[in-house]
Amino acid sequence: MEQNSGYCCDRYCASAAEKIKEACACPEAEIFFLVGGTQANQVVIDTVLAPYEGVVSAQTGHVNSHEAGAIEFTGHKVLEIPQREGKIFASELEAFVSRFWQDGNHEHMVFPGMVYISHPTEYGTLYSKKELEDISAVCRKFNMPLYLDGARLAYGLAAPGTDVTLQDVARLCDVFYIGGTKCGAFFGEAVVFTRLPMPKYFVTRVKQHGALLAKGHILGIQFDTLFTDGLYFKIGEHAIKLAQILRKGFADAGLELYIDSPTNQQFVELPDSILQKLTERNIVYRFWEKNAPDKTVVRFVTSWATKEESVEKLAAVLKELMAGC
Amino acid sequence: MEQNSGYCCDRYCASAAEKIKEACACPEAEIFFLVGGTQANQVVIDTVLAPYEGVVSAQTGHVNSHEAGAIEFTGHKVLEIPQREGKIFASELEAFVSRFWQDGNHEHMVFPGMVYISHPTEYGTLYSKKELEDISAVCRKFNMPLYLDGARLAYGLAAPGTDVTLQDVARLCDVFYIGGTKCGAFFGEAVVFTRLPMPKYFVTRVKQHGALLAKGHILGIQFDTLFTDGLYFKIGEHAIKLAQILRKGFADAGLELYIDSPTNQQFVELPDSILQKLTERNIVYRFWEKNAPDKTVVRFVTSWATKEESVEKLAAVLKELMAGC
Amino acid sequence: MEQNSGYCCDRYCASAAEKIKEACACPEAEIFFLVGGTQANQVVIDTVLAPYEGVVSAQTGHVNSHEAGAIEFTGHKVLEIPQREGKIFASELEAFVSRFWQDGNHEHMVFPGMVYISHPTEYGTLYSKKELEDISAVCRKFNMPLYLDGARLAYGLAAPGTDVTLQDVARLCDVFYIGGTKCGAFFGEAVVFTRLPMPKYFVTRVKQHGALLAKGHILGIQFDTLFTDGLYFKIGEHAIKLAQILRKGFADAGLELYIDSPTNQQFVELPDSILQKLTERNIVYRFWEKNAPDKTVVRFVTSWATKEESVEKLAAVLKELMAGC
Amino acid sequence: MEQNSGYCCDRYCASAAEKIKEACACPEAEIFFLVGGTQANQVVIDTVLAPYEGVVSAQTGHVNSHEAGAIEFTGHKVLEIPQREGKIFASELEAFVSRFWQDGNHEHMVFPGMVYISHPTEYGTLYSKKELEDISAVCRKFNMPLYLDGARLAYGLAAPGTDVTLQDVARLCDVFYIGGTKCGAFFGEAVVFTRLPMPKYFVTRVKQHGALLAKGHILGIQFDTLFTDGLYFKIGEHAIKLAQILRKGFADAGLELYIDSPTNQQFVELPDSILQKLTERNIVYRFWEKNAPDKTVVRFVTSWATKEESVEKLAAVLKELMAGC
Repeated sequence: MEQNSGYCCDRYCASAAEKIKEACACPEAEIFFLVGGTQANQVVIDTVLAPYEGVVSAQTGHVNSHEAGAIEFTGHKVLEIPQREGKIFASELEAFVSRFWQDGNHEHMVFPGMVYISHPTEYGTLYSKKELEDISAVCRKFNMPLYLDGARLAYGLAAPGTDVTLQDVARLCDVFYIGGTKCGAFFGEAVVFTRLPMPKYFVTRVKQHGALLAKGHILGIQFDTLFTDGLYFKIGEHAIKLAQILRKGFADAGLELYIDSPTNQQFVELPDSILQKLTERNIVYRFWEKNAPDKTVVRFVTSWATKEESVEKLAAVLKELMAGC
Repeated sequence: MEQNSGYCCDRYCASAAEKIKEACACPEAEIFFLVGGTQANQVVIDTVLAPYEGVVSAQTGHVNSHEAGAIEFTGHKVLEIPQREGKIFASELEAFVSRFWQDGNHEHMVFPGMVYISHPTEYGTLYSKKELEDISAVCRKFNMPLYLDGARLAYGLAAPGTDVTLQDVARLCDVFYIGGTKCGAFFGEAVVFTRLPMPKYFVTRVKQHGALLAKGHILGIQFDTLFTDGLYFKIGEHAIKLAQILRKGFADAGLELYIDSPTNQQFVELPDSILQKLTERNIVYRFWEKNAPDKTVVRFVTSWATKEESVEKLAAVLKELMAGC
Repeated sequence: MEQNSGYCCDRYCASAAEKIKEACACPEAEIFFLVGGTQANQVVIDTVLAPYEGVVSAQTGHVNSHEAGAIEFTGHKVLEIPQREGKIFASELEAFVSRFWQDGNHEHMVFPGMVYISHPTEYGTLYSKKELEDISAVCRKFNMPLYLDGARLAYGLAAPGTDVTLQDVARLCDVFYIGGTKCGAFFGEAVVFTRLPMPKYFVTRVKQHGALLAKGHILGIQFDTLFTDGLYFKIGEHAIKLAQILRKGFADAGLELYIDSPTNQQFVELPDSILQKLTERNIVYRFWEKNAPDKTVVRFVTSWATKEESVEKLAAVLKELMAGC
Repeated sequence: MEQNSGYCCDRYCASAAEKIKEACACPEAEIFFLVGGTQANQVVIDTVLAPYEGVVSAQTGHVNSHEAGAIEFTGHKVLEIPQREGKIFASELEAFVSRFWQDGNHEHMVFPGMVYISHPTEYGTLYSKKELEDISAVCRKFNMPLYLDGARLAYGLAAPGTDVTLQDVARLCDVFYIGGTKCGAFFGEAVVFTRLPMPKYFVTRVKQHGALLAKGHILGIQFDTLFTDGLYFKIGEHAIKLAQILRKGFADAGLELYIDSPTNQQFVELPDSILQKLTERNIVYRFWEKNAPDKTVVRFVTSWATKEESVEKLAAVLKELMAGC
């Protein structure tokens, strides 16, 4: 029954923003809350780019492959560059952008206006701090904002062996979003402008995209909760712990990992006969890709909501089934 | 902790859709849940129109005046026609569309491709069943879908003296939305396609607009609740009852209504001196327009959450202040 | 067989630009040549406006009514204001823009980002220098560029009684275009940025709109010719002289002008029976509008190519036919 | 001084269309004339695709790399597939499209809605009839229109050894354009819809793109001329004859071709020292790419306007300079 101001001008959003700024060690950051990941990518990329610019992305980047053309819908091209396990690299980025500016005909081409990366990537992999620093340096050299899609950021920050902290992300990127939807919230992504000012009349532009939530305090309440007592980080740790159990389960079952992911997405190639048995036992996996006639790469994902017993059951089932192969 | 399928393919959305179809007496309707009103307008209008078509609207229509250009953002023109107290009329609509088709040069103009109305309108006014039937007949004559923005539909259906039911809306319109955000939900609008098929690959197009909610069951749960035991209608009745008390309060205070609205939005022109005193007493109103140097038209809105005592307090305060004028 | 650089980087375009700058008495102007009028309007408006802005226009403005939604196609709203005989007025413009900025909710609305006028207007009427100065003053007060569509500019500059010169246009507007298509060229419009810098990477944006002519020297040659020895002005004078003969013809035939146009477009309301006889005699007119059951407003247009004998024939025919009424 | 109807509704356009239909052996074709190549690509692709569809193209395709994002500007993604020497291949096209339809998540992706090829390609290479038939078969299997960019079509049809005729193009593609700008016209491209109906209200959509030429007869006259007495084909033959002389010149100078192009674009890698000397002698080439520190790939192009003596001079100069290396 509590009455709040609309459109994210309420005390919960204000409090959540303060906590996020503190967690980022970036007091000058500007923060806005949006509902979903594709929406956040569309709004940020469209409002930061000039009309003659496109966004550079890995070929496998979410904005390039799995957002139904939401970026192009706003008039901007996604400029594909090569990737390995979902990651782009500073050297190839620099080569691509240098070639653009050296081309005598570049006024007939789409200008590279910002760089999109995801961390964790669509393959669950992570950038090292050195890799991020190198990409960030190329971006600054060419005056291109670096934008990080943090849909699964909690799981990246909690991964074993990572040397990238939330403060590093805030320092090396110009704008990024902290994913809520995939990290414990009903919905919501916190867009954080650290080294780039929030685009002019941002509320108007968010509205124009149909992306302005009237009762914005519902977003504020969720992020205020996630950033109280380290909940956002604990959520990540829980999922990572279970993903590690799963990895060990794969190894015990004699399965090789398809990609060596340190985060909550685990990819493994399984015989189709076994996949059928998993389905019979109500175990859910996601088809990823097929590189052989009788085997399929599938993805298992742990989250804040995954129970340890579920992961252990899957490990046991896989061991049993593989033993029978 | 319950796991559900994503993107509105869950059992709550299915159940809510069934209940809405029943309430509409339209078993063949197709329903999709979106997050907000501007988003619903943008997605529906853009996906229903052909690229060479625009949407006909009252000059005061929400899509024409208060959505930051969200319709034009998708490439479509809003074709303004005259209005009275927020309503358009069949005769003027027919004249406008006839003129278009008679113009020898109409291939150089935007085609009128659908008609947008709101019920209640932006001024709180309502169409009569006869008025809706006449508009609907013109739309069918010219093969233009009729789209009704029902952001405040609950309040329209509960208004004293209205002869328009939800079934009438479903029968006379081709597509409309049932507003959740302004009628008791945290967020959410139920788009109902009754006489028009849902546009092809609608999920893809919703995604392309950045409007697809991952955890769609949060929408389903809310609408399933609103359409259980007539809650949606009760919410409307409560607000209308309080709006009637407010109207009586205005009369008692000697105030003339600016617009004769039978719904939950009430407009009254107050001396600026009194407005200042309201502010001092923490009474919130919304500036509407200014037609005189020392008076201002303001809007008061009741809702599902308004308490009877608040309305009575406002009535008493106005009576006291006006007496002192 | 002459070889030239492409994309308007040739010596003819350079020479034409110099002559236009001299004719405008504006040495710092920047000039670009485009192919057509709708294209010029679309490119200029889209590249000058910010994404959250729309263009203010008379309801009858060409961009609002006869360009098939080319402005909205680029994501911008046309903000209609009232007009009289095709003209807008400073007082109403100021009222409209003031209301926008005073509205507490204006961040949910389309920002008025520039003002579009046509001179002559779509009704053949002209602004006086005083009227243009007043509109220009409002634009500067609110920091909105003033854009003048000069599709028929030659005919406006040559009209009897006008006190507006090309230099006035250059001084009072921020950007305008000098129409070639309707004033003697095969095609082409010269966009002149006087008080506004040419938008950044303009060639890229023109290309992105599909509007960059590869062999731009064909545009340059035409404008270089039109601005040599005052040809552009002579073309206007010829058409105006014939339009005056036509006006006298209407008067002699006892016909009242529908609009008192001093330029090459003349509007007259004729009985439908007479229109039929004109058609039988192969006399071409353009339907304008119908305000009575048995009469129709039609438009006759003179141009650089109209012969005096054609106009005199029309005058004689009308006199004969009207006498028989 | 001749008066014609506007917007390509004149007798020249009609006559040109008849001649093109005859040359294509496709009496049911529908033809529209546009001004430029990027414009033609933008208008055709945007009007043929559904809003949720993108166009499949070689990574090197003109629409993907050198049109400043004109396709994305209209909201559509260019879906890159691999290429070799500018050409795509049926097997890879089929693999790409099959993968899309097999992906359980494809409703979150851009649908492949049409296929773009250029002939000659951006590298001067040509498809064989068999290759075109195979691509066409894949397109028909998946119900995707095949669109051929014929900016340089005259040069492809005249190439030595090609087995592809204009009739083959008309039969195997659904829509294509016959380039005028690069093949002897001042400007103009003839869009030919053979197996696909011209999109509904095409004139309106062309206008909406700012692409409708008012005095369309200027386009008609040029194409009527080009398709009279085989002029279009003769223009191609002339350029090809000179390109062959150039190829022999490269060989005589001991230079290896960078790409084995049978058409009027010839690519060769030259030492940078020699390029400098060419510049000193006023010989114009176009930078293509740089794969070595001291050498550069450059492009030479012959056309309808190239003189035999120019080509022979270039061959002699190269021989002389290379001998001195």
